[in-house]
Amino acid sequence: MKVAGEAMRTIWLEPDGRTVGIIDQTRLPFRYETAALSDLAAMATAITTMQVRGAPLIGAAAAYGMALAMRPDAADGGVEDGDVERAHARLLATRPTAVNLRWALDRMREVLLLTPPSDRLDRAYAEAAAIADEDVEICRSIGRHGLHLIRAAHLRNPDRPVRVLTHCNAGWLATVDWGTATAPLYLAHEAGIPLHVWVDETRPRNQGAFLTAWELGQHGVPHAVIPDNTGGHLMQHGLVDLVIVGTDRTTAKGDVANKIGTYLKALAARDNDVPFYVALPSSTIDWTLEDGVQGIPIEERSGDEVALITGLAGHGGLETVRLVPEGSAVVNYAFDVTPARLVTGLITERGVCSPEDLAQLFPDHQPPAAMGRVPVNDE
Amino acid sequence: MKVAGEAMRTIWLEPDGRTVGIIDQTRLPFRYETAALSDLAAMATAITTMQVRGAPLIGAAAAYGMALAMRPDAADGGVEDGDVERAHARLLATRPTAVNLRWALDRMREVLLLTPPSDRLDRAYAEAAAIADEDVEICRSIGRHGLHLIRAAHLRNPDRPVRVLTHCNAGWLATVDWGTATAPLYLAHEAGIPLHVWVDETRPRNQGAFLTAWELGQHGVPHAVIPDNTGGHLMQHGLVDLVIVGTDRTTAKGDVANKIGTYLKALAARDNDVPFYVALPSSTIDWTLEDGVQGIPIEERSGDEVALITGLAGHGGLETVRLVPEGSAVVNYAFDVTPARLVTGLITERGVCSPEDLAQLFPDHQPPAAMGRVPVNDE
Repeated sequence: MKVAGEAMRTIWLEPDGRTVGIIDQTRLPFRYETAALSDLAAMATAITTMQVRGAPLIGAAAAYGMALAMRPDAADGGVEDGDVERAHARLLATRPTAVNLRWALDRMREVLLLTPPSDRLDRAYAEAAAIADEDVEICRSIGRHGLHLIRAAHLRNPDRPVRVLTHCNAGWLATVDWGTATAPLYLAHEAGIPLHVWVDETRPRNQGAFLTAWELGQHGVPHAVIPDNTGGHLMQHGLVDLVIVGTDRTTAKGDVANKIGTYLKALAARDNDVPFYVALPSSTIDWTLEDGVQGIPIEERSGDEVALITGLAGHGGLETVRLVPEGSAVVNYAFDVTPARLVTGLITERGVCSPEDLAQLFPDHQPPAAMGRVPVNDE
Repeated sequence: MKVAGEAMRTIWLEPDGRTVGIIDQTRLPFRYETAALSDLAAMATAITTMQVRGAPLIGAAAAYGMALAMRPDAADGGVEDGDVERAHARLLATRPTAVNLRWALDRMREVLLLTPPSDRLDRAYAEAAAIADEDVEICRSIGRHGLHLIRAAHLRNPDRPVRVLTHCNAGWLATVDWGTATAPLYLAHEAGIPLHVWVDETRPRNQGAFLTAWELGQHGVPHAVIPDNTGGHLMQHGLVDLVIVGTDRTTAKGDVANKIGTYLKALAARDNDVPFYVALPSSTIDWTLEDGVQGIPIEERSGDEVALITGLAGHGGLETVRLVPEGSAVVNYAFDVTPARLVTGLITERGVCSPEDLAQLFPDHQPPAAMGRVPVNDE
């Protein structure tokens, strides 16, 4: 997608073909800065400090982290198995419960251990690039399928923009390009369909206001930021044509764990006959799990994420201010689960289906190692 | 209620019996400051700048503003009708759409015009005190009726606190004392019933985090601030026994206009069989209006309330920071309407009733001048 008119990905190789470039997402939307990472330690830090975030991007970043780890050992004449294992362990520790991180690292390890030590450096970069490119293709496919839904809404009301509400950031910043929930929006925008996107601020970490609004704005997609409290009112008054959100984990029956507050929007959509869609790469489906509300543990995060917020101060620098009285407790659940009964359709890389048809769309699915036992926190 | 251990009201007479004391609510929760108002202009400013806010408190403040306005003219030997009218007009202009403000001012004008000019000063203070005391009694009655609901919840689970979720500030800070939604909580606390109050932060103006958390904390009621997104998850997991919110306007059928986001909590309560109660003085009922969603105009406020926020900075002063990228539009609806079908019960000064029984509980109601034509913004 575009930043200041220039087409970008969230992760790329610098001209030397070895150094990895990223957008430092901790500074958005107030500072647009990129970082060049040249070794394993730098990538581990980037993942830990959430300079890169979002499940798909974390996977690609970890893969490139493995490639970066091969460089010193390759220079020594070959990468030993122990080096591969150490890099895997080091990167896995950056976000131990991120399922996509583990998936990408396991894939890299398997490929590298099957490769002769002297070829491992080039093989690692090739495999990391493949992981990144595959993610782009998956997102683009999600976008193509979701585009039909937006086009249909446009044909019903051709004289005004299609109003889409989204929550949190399932945008291109969370992936390598296109995003999941945003891919249909970007494709619709490029197809000339007039859009207006309602961007939930997404407290407490404000990923909607900080990231989704920023990326839509940079790409030129009309949008407005709204408090998370607003969506129900908008739907009551016919101001939302459809909702599209992402998901961090999806059960075999189509329950979706996404950023806290998603469930409330799904309830409002149902109450007002607004279609509620969830965009997802099939890699987020946990085929071993059926009941998401009971089965998916929800991470409880630091209360400081609610009590404190960082924004742009009048003096032009970033400032952190307290929003809760000292002495008041704060509780901060990161995700909630929207039951499949509230989901109109799942937008996957293979097409759009209702939750009950998910297994039919993926007859070849393999039950992965039980994701259900780790809390969701791929953010 | 208590502040730092001392019993307080939100508005009072200073020892001279003429100067009016208020809590400067624009500085809460980070600065607790009171102000002494000695003339009409000071009170008009206090209302306009929201140093006093909340429909019942605005009414009492306006009444005291009328009393303050009588002082110079009384010193001149008597308050003429024109002085009464001018004070009425001046105060009405402070918050032109606040229904309770108009009600209190009209009552003061009527009483004063029937009083001999030389007695008007004393009469004004007496009537303002009556308005304040009546509000306290109404809130206490709401509290007594709501207390039964909390007691019943306690008896069902005597071994743990009763968990009550509330939204925005329908607390004692919005009234003269006790509050509306909070009155049952304070009475339960004083009756020794263990409580845990979930306080919705209430974006964009954070009245929950800034005011409700502060007043519960000062009075010693256990509570935790949560992002507005959190309530659905809590209810799904059995962590909320009942919801109690306030209302700015209630229709004859029991639709309630309250702070934006209330509707989403009502939907979650319904979806999880959590009782959803609305506490209200009957003065907020608009008997001329039935359908709140269609009939109550909702004020759209400045986007800056969403894009900017003021909190306590590290240097100990207050700082305003920006939370939305420059160039992103912001939309800010102040209220939403929760349809009566989602309301378990209305807690009024006469008792608790279901929405369909409201007219039966108030057989003597008078249709007031149509509130429906002015937007709700009694905050």
